[in-house]
Amino acid sequence: MKKSVYILLLAMCCHFNSIAQNVGDELNLMPWPQKVALGEGRLLLTKDFSLSITGEFDTRIYEYSNRFLRRLDGRTGLFFNQGMISKNTNFSKNAILKINIERPGKIQLHEDESYELKVSESEIILKAITDLGAMHGLETLLQLQSTTASNFYFPVVVVEDAPRFPWRGLMIDVSRHFQPVEVIKRNLDAMAAVKMNLFHWHLSDDQGFRVEILKHPKLTSLGSDGNYYTQAQIKEVVAYASDRGIQVVPEIDVPGHASALLTAYPELSSIDRENSIERNAGIFDPTLDPTNKKTYKLLADIFAELATLFPSPYVHIGGDENEGKDWDENEDIQEFMLKNDLKSNHDLQTYFNIKLQKILAKSDKVMIGWEEILTPIIPTSAIIHSWRGVNEGVPAKQSLVDAVKNKNQAILSNGYYIDLMYSVEDHYAVDPMPEVALTEEEKNRILGGEATMWSELVTPNSIDSRIWPRTAAISERFWSPKNIVDMESMHRRLGIISYQLEELGLKHISNRDVVLRNITNNQSIYSLKVLSNICEPLKGYTRNKDGVEYQMYSPFTLFADACVADAADKRKFKRAVANYVSDNSNTEELSKILHVWIVQNEAFLSLNKNPKLNSIAPLYQNLTTVSKVLLAAITTNTFNVQDKDVLRAALVRMQEANEVDVEFAIVEDLVVLAEFVSQMKEIQPIENK
Amino acid sequence: MKKSVYILLLAMCCHFNSIAQNVGDELNLMPWPQKVALGEGRLLLTKDFSLSITGEFDTRIYEYSNRFLRRLDGRTGLFFNQGMISKNTNFSKNAILKINIERPGKIQLHEDESYELKVSESEIILKAITDLGAMHGLETLLQLQSTTASNFYFPVVVVEDAPRFPWRGLMIDVSRHFQPVEVIKRNLDAMAAVKMNLFHWHLSDDQGFRVEILKHPKLTSLGSDGNYYTQAQIKEVVAYASDRGIQVVPEIDVPGHASALLTAYPELSSIDRENSIERNAGIFDPTLDPTNKKTYKLLADIFAELATLFPSPYVHIGGDENEGKDWDENEDIQEFMLKNDLKSNHDLQTYFNIKLQKILAKSDKVMIGWEEILTPIIPTSAIIHSWRGVNEGVPAKQSLVDAVKNKNQAILSNGYYIDLMYSVEDHYAVDPMPEVALTEEEKNRILGGEATMWSELVTPNSIDSRIWPRTAAISERFWSPKNIVDMESMHRRLGIISYQLEELGLKHISNRDVVLRNITNNQSIYSLKVLSNICEPLKGYTRNKDGVEYQMYSPFTLFADACVADAADKRKFKRAVANYVSDNSNTEELSKILHVWIVQNEAFLSLNKNPKLNSIAPLYQNLTTVSKVLLAAITTNTFNVQDKDVLRAALVRMQEANEVDVEFAIVEDLVVLAEFVSQMKEIQPIENK
Repeated sequence: MKKSVYILLLAMCCHFNSIAQNVGDELNLMPWPQKVALGEGRLLLTKDFSLSITGEFDTRIYEYSNRFLRRLDGRTGLFFNQGMISKNTNFSKNAILKINIERPGKIQLHEDESYELKVSESEIILKAITDLGAMHGLETLLQLQSTTASNFYFPVVVVEDAPRFPWRGLMIDVSRHFQPVEVIKRNLDAMAAVKMNLFHWHLSDDQGFRVEILKHPKLTSLGSDGNYYTQAQIKEVVAYASDRGIQVVPEIDVPGHASALLTAYPELSSIDRENSIERNAGIFDPTLDPTNKKTYKLLADIFAELATLFPSPYVHIGGDENEGKDWDENEDIQEFMLKNDLKSNHDLQTYFNIKLQKILAKSDKVMIGWEEILTPIIPTSAIIHSWRGVNEGVPAKQSLVDAVKNKNQAILSNGYYIDLMYSVEDHYAVDPMPEVALTEEEKNRILGGEATMWSELVTPNSIDSRIWPRTAAISERFWSPKNIVDMESMHRRLGIISYQLEELGLKHISNRDVVLRNITNNQSIYSLKVLSNICEPLKGYTRNKDGVEYQMYSPFTLFADACVADAADKRKFKRAVANYVSDNSNTEELSKILHVWIVQNEAFLSLNKNPKLNSIAPLYQNLTTVSKVLLAAITTNTFNVQDKDVLRAALVRMQEANEVDVEFAIVEDLVVLAEFVSQMKEIQPIENK
Repeated sequence: MKKSVYILLLAMCCHFNSIAQNVGDELNLMPWPQKVALGEGRLLLTKDFSLSITGEFDTRIYEYSNRFLRRLDGRTGLFFNQGMISKNTNFSKNAILKINIERPGKIQLHEDESYELKVSESEIILKAITDLGAMHGLETLLQLQSTTASNFYFPVVVVEDAPRFPWRGLMIDVSRHFQPVEVIKRNLDAMAAVKMNLFHWHLSDDQGFRVEILKHPKLTSLGSDGNYYTQAQIKEVVAYASDRGIQVVPEIDVPGHASALLTAYPELSSIDRENSIERNAGIFDPTLDPTNKKTYKLLADIFAELATLFPSPYVHIGGDENEGKDWDENEDIQEFMLKNDLKSNHDLQTYFNIKLQKILAKSDKVMIGWEEILTPIIPTSAIIHSWRGVNEGVPAKQSLVDAVKNKNQAILSNGYYIDLMYSVEDHYAVDPMPEVALTEEEKNRILGGEATMWSELVTPNSIDSRIWPRTAAISERFWSPKNIVDMESMHRRLGIISYQLEELGLKHISNRDVVLRNITNNQSIYSLKVLSNICEPLKGYTRNKDGVEYQMYSPFTLFADACVADAADKRKFKRAVANYVSDNSNTEELSKILHVWIVQNEAFLSLNKNPKLNSIAPLYQNLTTVSKVLLAAITTNTFNVQDKDVLRAALVRMQEANEVDVEFAIVEDLVVLAEFVSQMKEIQPIENK
């Protein structure tokens, strides 16, 4: 460990990336930087670690640096001498970490977010055009920190980094289940940690109108069950986001998805009906009347107040899933359409959208809407939010392509619907750039993408485990070079990021235990945890059948709520099966796993029973039955013919729907294994065994 | 299970209580009610469970009932049909739980908080004078809910309940370590769950001034490191508390403990000195100048704004630990004292306090102060907060007695300093009523008590595990009959309450795992958890020696931060040792425990090392050494003389101070065991063993 040698990478992009993925085997960065050159040597962390900041910048970097120091100190327990940093701090010229910033960054799209990081054995230089870039650099540094038996250190390294897409968003729906300020704040922390820069706040829907509008208090007094953000809280969140380099875009979903709004203002409904806050999930009829001038008056008032709360130039108006049933049934509306030459409901909605666009333009706001707002006559200033795909009967990214060809800018969410409970691999494989040929100009209109967390099935207690760590992989898709696609590397790094997110305050790990303790009624959760690590919640909206099995106030303290989309032990089992099938002397790992399942079912059965536990018992029973047969076969290299039917029946039951809303993540590999052992030499049952 | 039979208890108080403690073996209530009569039979919970509310009441009971329903539904997973309750709800006459309230309760001392609860096999009647009483009844009902293998149910029971003391408080110091709104809110939830009704908010101290004062923004811009509550947040917390029947009393600690305030306003210091926010713990010199008129002007401004934020009639002015050093050194102040016939610093402080009392009286506020404000001439309207005791060189409760004899009302905190990390048994044993003879009038002046959570050594991540579940036992001391004192019963019920507090959102259990994952650097925490369950943080301010080992920004992610004052496995081990010593054939339980410690040290040693883990290794090593010797002796009923010195040396090391700020909670019982086995038949070492 003498003087460091930088292995600078000057290769072609493609070549570079393949190296990057190799480097990835040593470093735990996510999103992966544009360029990384790992050197030799280490900078050891001691109590004397300190930082200095020079240049011109927004003062928020002081607080960011304080948090950086405290996070690093909390992780290492070194008791750094450097205390609280503020504008009055006289920085030492001998600081280990020297941060230099050229100018204050603006919280806006296309702002410079690049940074350069050079770690040598004696110092760290972090250079950035803006303080936003410097924040990203500090996060990279925290991810670079490594640990040995005797030291905490930073590896000698050079990083040059900047995002691939300017719009790297996370949407959180706070209508279906209200999410208190603390939930939003900790998710903003996590976003900053993985270099996301846009929080899309879905503030209204059928199940609740969640933002205080001073001029229209009825919106929340009648439309929110008392669960809404005061304007002071909105400002608090916007400031919190801004301090972390994150822009906040509000959404008021109209003209459909408006049951809550129309509960407060039934006179603006397209049909004379007594509206109420919706308790189920789905698509509902209540729709704003686009022929009523008061509709625009109310929306103008709402948008005017939002403009005072959200500095972002963007306002999302929703516009999705309006089936127009109420419009069809209202004769006045039909007459209005005839008179105004509006041939379809879609035309009428475009008429509505264009009026909204003009209202927004008055306060210099740019309209965003879900892809349904895209028509040839929608102004090209509107941003199109592409969300539909194969599940909705249209090709993926079709609206994205249509939009940019129509000269609109666009962002992608199809493929990033994290509420669907699909594997992170599915999301990671989706690139925001369509596969079809586009001009450079058209490509530039694709701003990036957004992970969308719809909240029909999540509470403040479970939402973190639905968003994280998966969204870190999606963020990598938005930030990193296109060909950073190695799944193994992604999984390895994601596991470490997940733990670092907990360190930062996210509850995606610890809150699962809270649910399991609830289910066991305060007994040992270990056996249930083992089961939860191979089960995944039902996927693709098959949980909550037809939207009416659960109501928004239903309990979400069930086994499925303690399971996550990527079951922790799924890949370990897949590997063990593959290793065994390729060489049947590799029994150790596989036997161990099967043995644990059998033993933990015994532990599970020894718990004091209760109705919630009872509902899980059949799952464990089937797992144990299968495990016992397979373990016997693997151990003896023979297959007891008597077990054939037992095995088949139990496997079928494992594949079937069950009442606790989960599926086994290991069934596929169990089937592989079952087929393999069924080829073994058969033995006959021993009598009276 | 036919018709229920109420076994009504009409016995004398004393007799009644002894029965109560027996009943306590079946019910999990805390605080224990004034009267409980357990009947026969059960009311089974089904999907159809519903409630109705009749009478006159504050509308907050709707939200409280909603939370009650959702908590019960979350616990049972039954999917209750009854949805959200509001003033528009038409309650069914067939509701299972019928709540009747006579009038809206006021959030004030001595308000009626009583309730009566009658559970039969078919319905539950909850009657209360005020909605505050009804809330307490709902909490009792949640604690009554029980579980069998096939059902969730309420036992048939009659409860008549009301608090013993009107002032049942928890103080949280948010100056030493700032605690965000979410931390305060979840602690208010917990307070309501255990029927506490007063939150004392220690808002200023040497380490930070934490409340926005619009007229004096410097107080927070210079005195808080940016960590303070906006007035909007204060109002939000006060409303949140009020919705849970809790009064909020603010404290601005003066004239000492004022470094942060004097950092903003150095011109009000008693000594011309450059003040700064204090980073250490202790008693510091900066003190307000009581001879400066501007001091009173500033305080009048502060108290005037507080009066708009806090509806409570009480304001706490601190007044503790002013050593008056700065006063001694200021000649002008000395002259002022001479001129005004103030013979001591205590006289000068009383002069200051009386001026404050007049300022507060202008906005109809009553002054509370720590016991140092008590002098013969302090107005009898002032409430005395008794905190000193044997540790401070005075008899416990002396100031409490002095206060009520002086015709002042008083509350007790000596004995309830939960930051000292003493056992819950110590706190539970302290009664607010002094042992000396007092008249009825004097007794009535003792309003109750407060648990005090000073925050030098806690962060938002660890504070819950310092407050809970212990404070539930202190609440029982304030609420329940004086002779509810059975330690075994308390421990048993506290374990269940602890779990229910986690269900409610408290982090005292799950956040310990977060610290352990940090220490292991994301490896299995099980072995460390086993160790943490027999270790306790150093007690009585011996952690953070002289207040300078830690600064307020130091890492609190150490092993001690994952340990709690009442180590989970301490009592289990004590029992096992006692059982064995009384009959040495009782080896099973004891051997099992010792074996686990030995095995888990192996697991601990197999973890990838890091400096934080290394610092813990000697603890585990000593434990294992002792455990091996003892296990061998217990197993063979002989004692290997060669082990004598090994055992003694390891035990001594276990008793010594160590670098990770914890002590073994099991040492006393290990010594008992060591003495016992040393009486066994000695055997000689086997050569070359």
